[in-house]
Amino acid sequence: MLNKDNNRTVVSRRSLLGKGLALGAVAAGGGAPKAAEAGNPANLPPNVPEWSKTLGDGVAVRAYGKPSKHEAHVIRRDVEWLTASRESSVSFTPLHELDGIITPNGLCFERHHSGIAELDPHDYRLMIHGLVDKPLMFTLEDLERLPRVNRIYFAECAANSGMEWRGAQMNACQFTHGMIHNVMYTGVPLKVLLEEAGVKTNAKWLLLEGADSAAMTRSLPLQKALDDCLIAFRMNGERLRPENGYPVRICVPGWEANMWVKWLRRIEVGDQPWHHREETSKYTDLLENGKARRFTYVMDAKSVITNPSPQAPLKHRKGITIVSGIAWSGRGKIARVDVTLDGGRNWRTARLDGPVLDRSMARFYVEFDWDGQELFLQSRAMDETGYVQPTKDELRKVRGVNSVYHNNGIQTWRVSPEGEVENVEIA
Amino acid sequence: MLNKDNNRTVVSRRSLLGKGLALGAVAAGGGAPKAAEAGNPANLPPNVPEWSKTLGDGVAVRAYGKPSKHEAHVIRRDVEWLTASRESSVSFTPLHELDGIITPNGLCFERHHSGIAELDPHDYRLMIHGLVDKPLMFTLEDLERLPRVNRIYFAECAANSGMEWRGAQMNACQFTHGMIHNVMYTGVPLKVLLEEAGVKTNAKWLLLEGADSAAMTRSLPLQKALDDCLIAFRMNGERLRPENGYPVRICVPGWEANMWVKWLRRIEVGDQPWHHREETSKYTDLLENGKARRFTYVMDAKSVITNPSPQAPLKHRKGITIVSGIAWSGRGKIARVDVTLDGGRNWRTARLDGPVLDRSMARFYVEFDWDGQELFLQSRAMDETGYVQPTKDELRKVRGVNSVYHNNGIQTWRVSPEGEVENVEIA
Repeated sequence: MLNKDNNRTVVSRRSLLGKGLALGAVAAGGGAPKAAEAGNPANLPPNVPEWSKTLGDGVAVRAYGKPSKHEAHVIRRDVEWLTASRESSVSFTPLHELDGIITPNGLCFERHHSGIAELDPHDYRLMIHGLVDKPLMFTLEDLERLPRVNRIYFAECAANSGMEWRGAQMNACQFTHGMIHNVMYTGVPLKVLLEEAGVKTNAKWLLLEGADSAAMTRSLPLQKALDDCLIAFRMNGERLRPENGYPVRICVPGWEANMWVKWLRRIEVGDQPWHHREETSKYTDLLENGKARRFTYVMDAKSVITNPSPQAPLKHRKGITIVSGIAWSGRGKIARVDVTLDGGRNWRTARLDGPVLDRSMARFYVEFDWDGQELFLQSRAMDETGYVQPTKDELRKVRGVNSVYHNNGIQTWRVSPEGEVENVEIA
Repeated sequence: MLNKDNNRTVVSRRSLLGKGLALGAVAAGGGAPKAAEAGNPANLPPNVPEWSKTLGDGVAVRAYGKPSKHEAHVIRRDVEWLTASRESSVSFTPLHELDGIITPNGLCFERHHSGIAELDPHDYRLMIHGLVDKPLMFTLEDLERLPRVNRIYFAECAANSGMEWRGAQMNACQFTHGMIHNVMYTGVPLKVLLEEAGVKTNAKWLLLEGADSAAMTRSLPLQKALDDCLIAFRMNGERLRPENGYPVRICVPGWEANMWVKWLRRIEVGDQPWHHREETSKYTDLLENGKARRFTYVMDAKSVITNPSPQAPLKHRKGITIVSGIAWSGRGKIARVDVTLDGGRNWRTARLDGPVLDRSMARFYVEFDWDGQELFLQSRAMDETGYVQPTKDELRKVRGVNSVYHNNGIQTWRVSPEGEVENVEIA
């Protein structure tokens, strides 16, 4: 009956009740709890919880709201041994604690090179100079008088999953894949600003520079800037957060997040790349033959199962079970995600649910009847260009294991009969 | 050149620089600021701000992030004289401080009848009983083992703009229109739960009951429950916030938010509505003839200009100016929004930007060249059913002015030559 007029993957009644989802049936004769009768507290049964008997906090006591105290474990985390200091380090999004495709601003991963620069928006300036007809300086208010757009994009650090090149290492989805967030950005197309300044015909590259004390810099091809880059000042409706570039960062859709310079203060227009630190000693991919790939901008299609995962084990021992995960591609929309329960012998196509947008996270689910035996879970993303997410071994054959960047290989989680999950590789 | 390969409304170079956007040109010969040279602070010019010279906070110091200290004014606000107590009251979303279509969780409006119920998720139960084959009790973990979906929906209180029936009154967009939020909900279709319980053939209505001490109740037609209602446990990816029903509320897409019962603990299946307080003395619309409209569930198409508005005046005196606002409809997608600058004499079609989704907020913009004279700004939404947002006077002719609910009339903002904005009505 449930499937009759519904073409989505839903579970029929028999499969749920028959397959280990032990829903508590209300005891016969026990009757249903009655609504508390107003004005007669004596009518309340003794087991009515405190929250149904007393007034709670009034409105706007929490003028800017926070999560429940029961969700205090849902936080960004760093890995102390991973970097020499916390000012030049990373904290990871708790992907295993999220669903859907929007990352709440308070949980978006951070990657800083000199800590969180705390800019005063009144003193903020963005300069555009170099090979332009007219160098320009913009205040934040200037930027907000230019036509703006709203786009949901993922931002992924090139080093996401970087620890896994040499084998399964980080036993947590948050640490293997948590250098990604997906929010709605609001900003002005960079093209609008460049047209105002008047780009000279010999211009080919831009230098992007941050206002943090690391003065983060990257070279950006002019064509990408004209195609789709945004000078962004909002995420998920509100102002950028300090750790994500308040008041202004650049969005470089589909490209590695290191290029999404935060606290953006300067754009220089030139005719060649600058070869600064972040595109020479860092963010290049050293191959086995001693050569390095450089300017590896695009984040290839990738996916990961977020639940179950090492930090989110299964709490039941068999029966109806949901696998949930995320997929994304720097080349366009996700077209399909396949999931295997047995390490790649058999694959099934996952249900994509929620908006599937260009260069945005997509959410996928597989519902299945777990027999309680060991599982080897993997997901494999395909994007609209036909690109298929490779295995880690396929990547290693081409790239070797010297790099920390651009590991978009298929992730394997082993689920034990007890529901515990660990990061493994299967030969 | 700017418009050549782009079919969006963007402003050509001449129109921006020619029309009062006084961008600061960089002084000739002044040169561009150089990137701070690492290791040689003495090279920094004296006017380099502190944030470009010192390390900021390291990662995960703010394990759950907060907005910048410069955004402390971006908060929900209540109106002290509006209600007898803050436990049975409302706080409003600061719409004039937001952009795009996602409301951050910390800014979603609240409406409580007995304050914020603080449930412990481990003790949470949802009971389904009444005209069912098998009464059932669900834990939160049970709900999370059922197939779930992700949908971006607006939730609007039926009383939104309710103070305006008798004329312009609240001089703030936050208070005239701020009882609305728009987030991505994750939840299980209610249909799945009802199929599990087995609804009897004579069933026609559901009673929804909250676990707060007001035991909030509403009657819901069974057909709506089967069509599209969600038993939701997440908003924007993370758990519901306490003030929005943690751990479980119901989403009733397109219908008045009073029916979106928070802290949902009980669903009773019956054959007729219950006629409880919230659908008799409240949430009915008293007409001039003494009769009342009841079960007025659907939120009709509506829109409002959020910027400029009384709390967000124009800071410039003429030139390129952006009007930004939101539109939504409980009957489907927004098809079009028109904007007038002169109180309805001339209309232009706004640019919708960002996802335009079924029963979700849509964002619109109009860019225009302000001559510095008085403006009378209005927006008018049309949805995909062909419904056109009415004027307030058109509404009053049909409904009178006795009700506080379902005022979706066109809002007028007067902008003075000084850029100040006030809530007015024009005859």
